Amino acid sequence: MTTLNHQFKLTARPKGNVKRSDFSYLSEPVRDVLDGEVIVKNLYISLDPAMRGWMNESKASYIPPVELGEVMRAIAVGQVVASKNPQFAVGDYVNGLLGMQEYAYSNGQGLTRVDPKLAPLPLFLSTLGMPGLTAYFGLLDVGKPKAGETVVVSGAAGAVGAVVGQIAKIKGARVIGIAGGADKCRYLVDELGFDGAIDYKKENVMEALKVLCPNGVDVYFDNVGGDILDAVLTRLARGARIVICGAISQYNNTAPVKGPANYLALLVNRASMTGIMVADYYPRAMEAMIAMGGWIAEGKLKSREDIHNGLENFPEVFAKLFNGENNGKLVLKVAKD
Amino acid sequence: MTTLNHQFKLTARPKGNVKRSDFSYLSEPVRDVLDGEVIVKNLYISLDPAMRGWMNESKASYIPPVELGEVMRAIAVGQVVASKNPQFAVGDYVNGLLGMQEYAYSNGQGLTRVDPKLAPLPLFLSTLGMPGLTAYFGLLDVGKPKAGETVVVSGAAGAVGAVVGQIAKIKGARVIGIAGGADKCRYLVDELGFDGAIDYKKENVMEALKVLCPNGVDVYFDNVGGDILDAVLTRLARGARIVICGAISQYNNTAPVKGPANYLALLVNRASMTGIMVADYYPRAMEAMIAMGGWIAEGKLKSREDIHNGLENFPEVFAKLFNGENNGKLVLKVAKD
Repeated sequence: MTTLNHQFKLTARPKGNVKRSDFSYLSEPVRDVLDGEVIVKNLYISLDPAMRGWMNESKASYIPPVELGEVMRAIAVGQVVASKNPQFAVGDYVNGLLGMQEYAYSNGQGLTRVDPKLAPLPLFLSTLGMPGLTAYFGLLDVGKPKAGETVVVSGAAGAVGAVVGQIAKIKGARVIGIAGGADKCRYLVDELGFDGAIDYKKENVMEALKVLCPNGVDVYFDNVGGDILDAVLTRLARGARIVICGAISQYNNTAPVKGPANYLALLVNRASMTGIMVADYYPRAMEAMIAMGGWIAEGKLKSREDIHNGLENFPEVFAKLFNGENNGKLVLKVAKD
Repeated sequence: MTTLNHQFKLTARPKGNVKRSDFSYLSEPVRDVLDGEVIVKNLYISLDPAMRGWMNESKASYIPPVELGEVMRAIAVGQVVASKNPQFAVGDYVNGLLGMQEYAYSNGQGLTRVDPKLAPLPLFLSTLGMPGLTAYFGLLDVGKPKAGETVVVSGAAGAVGAVVGQIAKIKGARVIGIAGGADKCRYLVDELGFDGAIDYKKENVMEALKVLCPNGVDVYFDNVGGDILDAVLTRLARGARIVICGAISQYNNTAPVKGPANYLALLVNRASMTGIMVADYYPRAMEAMIAMGGWIAEGKLKSREDIHNGLENFPEVFAKLFNGENNGKLVLKVAKD
């Protein structure tokens, strides 16, 4: 019996929003495992904003673009179903860049073993995965919030933002989240314990920040860029630190990126704006895992995964990241665990 | 005999370029000195880009705007001609915010005694004054160049930029200056020892940076903002530090400031952009003076003052800062020293 491997291959560079026609959805037989190799059956595939950048033919980025005709790059959690690699046994659960497909071949490099007894598997794609590490190190290493300071985070109900806000609370800061829609804002305050939330779809962000951050913003963790970044720049406190983690408002732009017109607020406020890349912190991942594992156990760090079924739905589910329809970490479930 | 004090008072908020009609040029008799006060006769008045910002009715800045009807704020060096303040004697030379006028009254606060035996008086408005302190602390405290790194500075032939570049050379960095015109570029390389210069009026800055900074830019000290900042952002090295000191290209804008469209280069390169305000470093001024005094004595730190005569010419001379006509630190000589 031949097992088929369904795959999404990138076939066109998307212009603006990602469309199904930018991919081909095909299948090929799963071949035998080679020496040194493992075959992983993907269970949960992560849908991350960064994937949009990987689809572009950008010349100077931190990671090469996905080539046309290549399987779409994606982080996933799966189970080893065949192994000729002594480091992994059949049945092991692993996390890595396994791609938008049902089965992945790997020589083991970049694969991390995960233990489903410690946490549900999707959590290794959110708080205990790349988004959680991004939040932990971006906030604590670059944002450096002190107790009593005011921390603002955008994309606050997203996989990174929700963790940023909760860690800032744990560290004694006042936390204001910016998110789209009343449901998300209620979630931030009622479930995650944020001190306040701003619904950017309904409210004037600049005016709301005046009310909610009367002493200014000490740390701003930016996931969205665009007009919201410009609004926060008008409310910086002296010595503020802005962490540039992403700019989801700009990723589908066909026009040039909107630069922050109010960047001279950095000067007036002796403030800084620093970009982070989570890959730099992978060698220190253990430190974050131990801390976050503890907070999860104590009930201080909650997460919400927004799990959709079916590999075949990838293009439409991915679009939810950009229209704000996701509720928490967006994950595609592609097989039973 | 009555001595007259000629003064420029701000009478309108300039729109775009500063015009003579934005001021009234009047005189009033110099009154007697009061208890606790000194009267200073201004000798050299500094013309600084920051003055343009002080003319705006901005609400949230680091210093209140000059009020309409008030004498235009300016830093100057002058001589005490009357004193009922025990800290200053007649004949003392002082430096402070003495205003765009011939005589200033002061209670002594913010005045610093300067010694004309140590350096020519105009030097206390340039390398041994506010611009020099800005360069010294902005570069060393925020830019933190290491030997062998590449430092780029814009407005490189200006009062701040020229000092930035020379200190970076002293610290062992490769230094590229960006300036307007062949004369200024020649000055940077031939007189100040920069490793290269880019004439932004003639050259494509992005292409020139590719050639002159093959390993990218480690430190960028920005005095100009606008398109040049965007060009440098495309050439950052990993971990680059951008010091935001000013944005002279934007100060006369009637349209909104052009934000740096390429700011996401901060993310890709794990780079930072930090604003500085020289006033924060005044308590450490002595440290800079000792270092820079030594370098001047050794001939390693040169400066050029562009001195124009006559208080009455203030509006037209000030305009040279913005059309790039100044050659070094722009100073108005308003009396004989």
